[in-house]
Amino acid sequence: MIDLEGKLADSFRCKTLKWLSEEYHEMNGTQYDVLDHMPTPLEFSRLVHIARPVLIKESTVPEVDDKCAWSKEWISEKMGNNKISVAVTPNGRADAVTTGPDGKLFFAEPHTQRMTVSSFLDTLSSDTEGHEIDNQSWEVHYLQSQNGNLFSSRYFDMSGEEDPSEFEALREYIPSDVSWCSDALDRTPDAVNLWIGDERSVTSIHSDPYENIYTVIRGAKHFTLLPPTEGWCLKERRYPHGTYARSSSSSALELVPSLPSVPLVRWSSVTDPTAPGALPSEAHPIHVTVKAGETLYLPAGWWHHVRQEGFTVAVNYWYDMEGRGMSWVWMNFLRGTEEPPLGNDEGAGAKAGGQIES
Amino acid sequence: MIDLEGKLADSFRCKTLKWLSEEYHEMNGTQYDVLDHMPTPLEFSRLVHIARPVLIKESTVPEVDDKCAWSKEWISEKMGNNKISVAVTPNGRADAVTTGPDGKLFFAEPHTQRMTVSSFLDTLSSDTEGHEIDNQSWEVHYLQSQNGNLFSSRYFDMSGEEDPSEFEALREYIPSDVSWCSDALDRTPDAVNLWIGDERSVTSIHSDPYENIYTVIRGAKHFTLLPPTEGWCLKERRYPHGTYARSSSSSALELVPSLPSVPLVRWSSVTDPTAPGALPSEAHPIHVTVKAGETLYLPAGWWHHVRQEGFTVAVNYWYDMEGRGMSWVWMNFLRGTEEPPLGNDEGAGAKAGGQIES
Ligand SMILES: O=C(O)CCC(=O)C(=O)O
Ligand SMILES: O=C(O)CCC(=O)C(=O)O
Repeated sequence: MIDLEGKLADSFRCKTLKWLSEEYHEMNGTQYDVLDHMPTPLEFSRLVHIARPVLIKESTVPEVDDKCAWSKEWISEKMGNNKISVAVTPNGRADAVTTGPDGKLFFAEPHTQRMTVSSFLDTLSSDTEGHEIDNQSWEVHYLQSQNGNLFSSRYFDMSGEEDPSEFEALREYIPSDVSWCSDALDRTPDAVNLWIGDERSVTSIHSDPYENIYTVIRGAKHFTLLPPTEGWCLKERRYPHGTYARSSSSSALELVPSLPSVPLVRWSSVTDPTAPGALPSEAHPIHVTVKAGETLYLPAGWWHHVRQEGFTVAVNYWYDMEGRGMSWVWMNFLRGTEEPPLGNDEGAGAKAGGQIES
Repeated sequence: MIDLEGKLADSFRCKTLKWLSEEYHEMNGTQYDVLDHMPTPLEFSRLVHIARPVLIKESTVPEVDDKCAWSKEWISEKMGNNKISVAVTPNGRADAVTTGPDGKLFFAEPHTQRMTVSSFLDTLSSDTEGHEIDNQSWEVHYLQSQNGNLFSSRYFDMSGEEDPSEFEALREYIPSDVSWCSDALDRTPDAVNLWIGDERSVTSIHSDPYENIYTVIRGAKHFTLLPPTEGWCLKERRYPHGTYARSSSSSALELVPSLPSVPLVRWSSVTDPTAPGALPSEAHPIHVTVKAGETLYLPAGWWHHVRQEGFTVAVNYWYDMEGRGMSWVWMNFLRGTEEPPLGNDEGAGAKAGGQIES
């Protein structure tokens, strides 16, 4: 006999998630607020409660009195010889589901390469010249270290410990926090990250348990957003883990499957939510373009896919979401307690593993 | 064949609600904040997002420089001859599930009686003398009109329309809004109510879609609170509607069943959540006593049962809850879309009717 009870529980869960996403959409639509100026702490506190994306037509990063500020040349001048860690992939898809050497799907982590800022910047498109530039590498480089490369939570600790940054030389241009956000949430950022890349890098759709203040400094970013209630439309599956590494013979990047002991990674099986038909009709994606000088408030738990236009520099502030009250519980409920089956073999329903995230 | 699918859907819904209430309790416990002073708008905005009860050891109502202020005598002096509408029941249980004349359970609305403030106050216990006073009525009187008897939303409308109050004479002593709450929520109250009663009146457990700022001016109120996630522990059922009316022969109050066309009323079947064993072990009631000069923030959707000690005067401010975002959707989900069966005949599962509330 088949597992009728399990099947019905799945179908009920599915119905429940559909009902919630429908109701949510009925109440909220796909509208998002656009503010001309930074909100006050009180205004922002209200926005956090509403938890909808907000586009703010102002930058968290003060303007620098130099027409060339944040250009490749300007950054090189500040710290061209410094060594930094850069994510390298053959296809611009770091932290994404990709077909591996054996034709199977993997969750691929990028190769991390140490290089000077100048040589990194040389691999990227120039904002003016467009895509084809002389020294553009075949490989795709993206500064996306996400570890608080500008300021980490240690910086704000009273411990007096040091918080070294690879981007020490740029710290004087970037505030360590967003005062209206810190005041509203009554906390300091968990991580402040610098992002530098070009149109060849894409960030695959995912969600973070952080309130996210995201400012584009140069270039533009195209966000595709889904509310937490529409996570079920993204069909998360569990994928074996792999990391790009340089072949010792050809020095080309190849995806190296991780040891079987490395847990499977739960990730959306929708690789490009902007492609026609990629999402079910019940999904209501919101497209927001954040231009240089603008800031996006991306509430905790919202799904986001990010593309960029040419040479793009951005900085984001991650603040821990409020753990008290309902938000955290709902988030967990929407993410699901049951592990969905493997991406490679939908019927198998392997039980081991989970999301590689804390 | 029995409706296996329906049964399993019910059991899955039940498991889901249990899971949510367990997770919520694990994250939040039964702790509540106690503030020595009124919060600032920003502090309160954060508290609204957390949506846990908060006891504030300060009054929203300014102190009156008169030792007798808010005593029966003082109120009588201000407006003793004014006529007001008072809820009268034989048992102090207005808007509650009660056994009717035929032994069946009803949702009973009180008899509404017009009387002077003096004669109403004469029916109540005196705070000093305790329960037995000469002219104490056998019937139980409670000023609980809940229609914005002090200030209604009309008062705040720009329309210039009048907002007459039965308690005009007391308006000068009671602020029309709570400034830190109005600022935090960016709206004016939907209703400001005066409550006057004694220990014989009890408010049965229910929840409202309002942020509630509740100040006790004289006496004390004992609140028994459950979070929105524990609503399932209150076993809502649907009851026929009835209203107390005076018998023309004996002039005693009797419960008159409403016409069958009046919708059934969905209400908790737990008549006294403070009684031992009344709640399942999964419920985690929070008991908060609000004394004279103190204020309770009762977040929208929280279940509350309210008792009082002797002669008690209170004022509360209802503010519409935020409709955007998730809160409203979750509330509806927790309340359930499916109608639970009738209170009188659990097996019947009648389909008509609903909650008498907007
Ligand atoms: O800018 C990007 O490529 C991704 C940003 C992102 O995922 C985040 O800020 O959480
Ligand atoms: O004070 C009472 O008796 C009940 C108060 C109440 O139910 C409310 O304020 O919503």
